[in-house]
Amino acid sequence: MPTANVAADHYELYYWPGIPGRGEFVRLVCEDAGAPYLDVARRPASEGGGEAAVVRALESLPGLPAFAPPILRVGALVIAQTANICGFLGDRHDLSPGTEGGRAQAMQLQLTISDLVAEVHDTHHPISTAQYYEEQRDAAKLRAAAFRDQRMPKFLGYFDRALQSSGGPWLLGDACCHADLSLLQALLGLEYAFPRAFARQARRVPELLRLRDRVAERPRIAAYLASPRRQAFNEHGIFRRYPELDAA
Amino acid sequence: MPTANVAADHYELYYWPGIPGRGEFVRLVCEDAGAPYLDVARRPASEGGGEAAVVRALESLPGLPAFAPPILRVGALVIAQTANICGFLGDRHDLSPGTEGGRAQAMQLQLTISDLVAEVHDTHHPISTAQYYEEQRDAAKLRAAAFRDQRMPKFLGYFDRALQSSGGPWLLGDACCHADLSLLQALLGLEYAFPRAFARQARRVPELLRLRDRVAERPRIAAYLASPRRQAFNEHGIFRRYPELDAA
Repeated sequence: MPTANVAADHYELYYWPGIPGRGEFVRLVCEDAGAPYLDVARRPASEGGGEAAVVRALESLPGLPAFAPPILRVGALVIAQTANICGFLGDRHDLSPGTEGGRAQAMQLQLTISDLVAEVHDTHHPISTAQYYEEQRDAAKLRAAAFRDQRMPKFLGYFDRALQSSGGPWLLGDACCHADLSLLQALLGLEYAFPRAFARQARRVPELLRLRDRVAERPRIAAYLASPRRQAFNEHGIFRRYPELDAA
Repeated sequence: MPTANVAADHYELYYWPGIPGRGEFVRLVCEDAGAPYLDVARRPASEGGGEAAVVRALESLPGLPAFAPPILRVGALVIAQTANICGFLGDRHDLSPGTEGGRAQAMQLQLTISDLVAEVHDTHHPISTAQYYEEQRDAAKLRAAAFRDQRMPKFLGYFDRALQSSGGPWLLGDACCHADLSLLQALLGLEYAFPRAFARQARRVPELLRLRDRVAERPRIAAYLASPRRQAFNEHGIFRRYPELDAA
């Protein structure tokens, strides 16, 4: 729910069209909050959308420039960095704890999800973001193996421990926060990208899967996931299904 | 200066001894704030320090577990994630802007520095953190070339643009924030790790170098840099000088 200090009537999100990508973490917070947002680049190019909208936002929005999308515009304020936007929206829409320490814990979890997402990206781009996957496939196979065998179980085990430490039902206890919403997307993404490895490892963290389902069943999230606004994973985004990068 | 709402008398930092690493970003905020902190793992093992102190912190501090150090303990609160800790301390010690939007901008900058740091780490570990550098040197040479040629100029250009957009003298304008302190460490680290590439690229961002010097000259930072508390960069940390990864 918008709280009294929401200054702008709506949010403008700038993110690459055609992939869920990092923009999806922002969308999930807006959707769960019931906060109106305009997904600018998903409008037709004739209405100011398309990739050009993101390029324009990177080059010419007023104020502090952004290094990369997603970018959120709220009235005169323009901010970037996925975790930062999620925390900002969470604080405004009752999706953050009400205490200084609790907000820092939510951001800690959100940033650990960011780290996971960056590592997943690097499984298919271990050498350079300026080269195609096919040009770095050999290194990608090595990096993906290390990710699947060492990092993915460490991340899954970590979030499972975090959930246990709070007693649930949410990562930080009684109330759902922005990091719970982001964890849903991260777990769905891992399952999409590494179906065989995920199936094996997920058996060890049943409570984490229940948390994932609990988030997916929140009424506004369920409505969003069933809507045309929700974009499917694909091989242009962060979570890509390349069978040669999954477990045998 | 500690503000009235600082609940604990001092902070406990848990970070791997022997390297500046990600812990250094936290140290710089504490030092500039004049906030007392105990660098737990740098005490002798006989007094509860050493690597074992970090391992114990990861395994058994109360509350939300941490995925990795640095970890900050403040009374009953334990938080992790470098950027999160820097923002938390910045908010408490007048090293963050006083507005919701300004704090989000400081965190945006801090997280962009985190991204840079992660990319620097991956120049020497592009395949796996569980393998030695020497086992992944061929991939490291490729990744380091892409970092030096494409990413480092993009990051330097970005922070230069950010500084221009505020009008200076600090990244966000009139007041120094935690991201300025972190930028000092990032720029010193780039210069250490890639002396030839940095020397060439830094010529294009003279205002950024002046900002770096301005941070280094802040009285408490200058005193810290000259003190035995300051640790030198070395080849066990994030910023490593391997001549074969620098420009020709």
